[in-house]
Amino acid sequence: MALVVQKYGGSSVASADRIRRVAERIVETKKQGHDVVVVCSAMGDTTDELLDLAEQVAPAPPAREMDMLLTSGERISNALVAMAIHTLGAEARSFTGSQAGVITTSVHGKAKIIDVTPSRVQEALDEGTIVLVAGFQGVSQDSKDVTTLGRGGSDTTAVALAAALEADVCEIYTDVDGVFTADPRIVADAQKLEQVSYEEMLEMAACGSKVLMLRCVEYARRYNVPVHVRSSYTDKPGTYVYGSMEDIPLEQAILTGVAHDRSEAKVTVVGLPDVPGYAAKVFRAVAESEINIDMVLQNISKVETGKTDITFTLPRSDGQRAVEMLAGHQEEIGFSQVLYDDHIGKVSLVGAGMKSHPGVTATFCEALAEAGINIDLISTSEIRISVLVKDTELDDAVQVLHRAFDLGGDEVAVVHAGTGR
Amino acid sequence: MALVVQKYGGSSVASADRIRRVAERIVETKKQGHDVVVVCSAMGDTTDELLDLAEQVAPAPPAREMDMLLTSGERISNALVAMAIHTLGAEARSFTGSQAGVITTSVHGKAKIIDVTPSRVQEALDEGTIVLVAGFQGVSQDSKDVTTLGRGGSDTTAVALAAALEADVCEIYTDVDGVFTADPRIVADAQKLEQVSYEEMLEMAACGSKVLMLRCVEYARRYNVPVHVRSSYTDKPGTYVYGSMEDIPLEQAILTGVAHDRSEAKVTVVGLPDVPGYAAKVFRAVAESEINIDMVLQNISKVETGKTDITFTLPRSDGQRAVEMLAGHQEEIGFSQVLYDDHIGKVSLVGAGMKSHPGVTATFCEALAEAGINIDLISTSEIRISVLVKDTELDDAVQVLHRAFDLGGDEVAVVHAGTGR
Repeated sequence: MALVVQKYGGSSVASADRIRRVAERIVETKKQGHDVVVVCSAMGDTTDELLDLAEQVAPAPPAREMDMLLTSGERISNALVAMAIHTLGAEARSFTGSQAGVITTSVHGKAKIIDVTPSRVQEALDEGTIVLVAGFQGVSQDSKDVTTLGRGGSDTTAVALAAALEADVCEIYTDVDGVFTADPRIVADAQKLEQVSYEEMLEMAACGSKVLMLRCVEYARRYNVPVHVRSSYTDKPGTYVYGSMEDIPLEQAILTGVAHDRSEAKVTVVGLPDVPGYAAKVFRAVAESEINIDMVLQNISKVETGKTDITFTLPRSDGQRAVEMLAGHQEEIGFSQVLYDDHIGKVSLVGAGMKSHPGVTATFCEALAEAGINIDLISTSEIRISVLVKDTELDDAVQVLHRAFDLGGDEVAVVHAGTGR
Repeated sequence: MALVVQKYGGSSVASADRIRRVAERIVETKKQGHDVVVVCSAMGDTTDELLDLAEQVAPAPPAREMDMLLTSGERISNALVAMAIHTLGAEARSFTGSQAGVITTSVHGKAKIIDVTPSRVQEALDEGTIVLVAGFQGVSQDSKDVTTLGRGGSDTTAVALAAALEADVCEIYTDVDGVFTADPRIVADAQKLEQVSYEEMLEMAACGSKVLMLRCVEYARRYNVPVHVRSSYTDKPGTYVYGSMEDIPLEQAILTGVAHDRSEAKVTVVGLPDVPGYAAKVFRAVAESEINIDMVLQNISKVETGKTDITFTLPRSDGQRAVEMLAGHQEEIGFSQVLYDDHIGKVSLVGAGMKSHPGVTATFCEALAEAGINIDLISTSEIRISVLVKDTELDDAVQVLHRAFDLGGDEVAVVHAGTGR
């Protein structure tokens, strides 16, 4: 008998019919003799509908109330799944994030889980009940206010619960069959991966792979939670995310895949004095606005002026705010101009195999050059190469790299519709 | 400066537009220098939509999960009203019933408020913030589960909060102008009452007046909370509910009005042994099924058989269950048959003036007799006469009695559409 945490995305519970199917799978797992904890996202379009209502009422709603509003979505889906399970003759009890002991920071809209104290969940499990926990939400440690975890929050809730309960596996049910070597909507022969190490999955997530969110993988890695990403439409196994890259024998290390990201924008701060401390001022100002930056490039100083430029990428959704904030600090920081470009895309190659194959960077750049794709910015880690290209050339870049590194399989991948959160 | 608790029903917050208008009224009250606590019901049809979803998923959903589901409705409306207030430049913070310290019994779907410990509400008020509290909900004392208070629960939340916070007034905003001498949809010249004592309002509510629910008036009376029932569509004063009947000088005591109730059904238990203890068995069995009975009549024993019949009324929604339950206990209780009739209606005359006007019962019965309306069952209190009639004759009975006691005014009452909870 194992303890299984299952997470179902919004598309898996989008209708009464789908909710019943999810309930069947949950009860089936319970009947196999396992303890089951389930985390559900809000039903299909619920979140969008709530966002729409908020917009009608208030152009700039306060984040605390937004969290109060949005968390009702998971509350609804979890209660409905509990009811559907009940109808199948099994016992189920649903808990809010707060009731399940999901303690978070106080940053509304993107709170981070600090701790999980699932005593009520454990008690219910001990009584033989299936437990449902509302994903994406928690309660802030300081103010005891309802918080949300931001995008992909339900996955993180599931993994954090799995860690706290010492679950045997955390199953993430989604609308794709697992983690692929590239987005099957772009690359027809993209292959499903059987297993990916935490580090590789981290890099994939950081580079735009939407299957699992970064926070969720970080949590899984830190607490060593085996994650099984699989489709809610089939019984086929998906992709197992577990194990450290360090444990993979060098000769078996391969390239994981090609990830891409369309959600970033590029900011260039022009004409900064090229003396120590000025770059730090820029990044301190950005950090204080709670904006995460990704890639960074500091241009070589122009000797004649003693000035330099700094380019960085950031989430497109924070772009406007970053530009306005920097403009407001122009005199204090001391630069001449801010440029903004949101017609960019990032393509990345990830894999532990990179360490043992010295020619990877060369092949990477050659492949893009041959396809006539210009590289704007480049950044690498031990197991990743990322470059910034024009957004119109992004799909091409993904296809070219997937082919150049021979990542394709024989089958054409199946793509299902829908998204989760 | 006063502390005002305001409650807005579902129709008052049914759309983004109405929410904005409610927010304006709230901010206006705050600007007048008052502290404001607001309780909102769920938006218009939200509850029905959630009930519909539940029905699609589970034919007999567990009550605990039903409460989890339904309470999301108030959470949504409260967060939206908070956002709308924020847009008008005032501070607002919304709390769930649990966060606001509304402690209840554990009976899901019809929990009762045991205590209100509004420390977080008080703190927020002290900081100068408008506070919103989700109505209709609380947290159970024993299991810390989310509960709902049943019909009219938001009114009770408002009055209970007003009591706990020692508010100066609890304003119940609704879609009618106040408490009327009869339902204006039935009696065209029904008059709005300026003031009603708690006892009279209790009797009106118990007899089917839907303006305030019984529990809410009970709470107001126990804690001496002045309640102002008024329309959310106008600024005109409505009806004040406060003061004891005892304090009204006899010569000023009048008749409050005619109430009616279409929600009851009649059960007759036939052929009970007419010896002590048998009636008690019937009512014990009904009580253990958590069914409230209203009027009771025990027929005179038939000497030749030593048997008697007992007739009682109960909420129609519990009728089927009561009949099945009694049938299941037939041998144990020892009766021959159960009859059920849901084509009945109850009409009542209420008023402290009844005490000092001895002819009231006679006039009451004569008026109905003249109109050819047959009385099925009669029950009285010090300040009330209620009779059971055929449901098809109920409207007639209300009109006849309203006229017989000269309760009409000169104006024709204005009726707005919509309902609250």
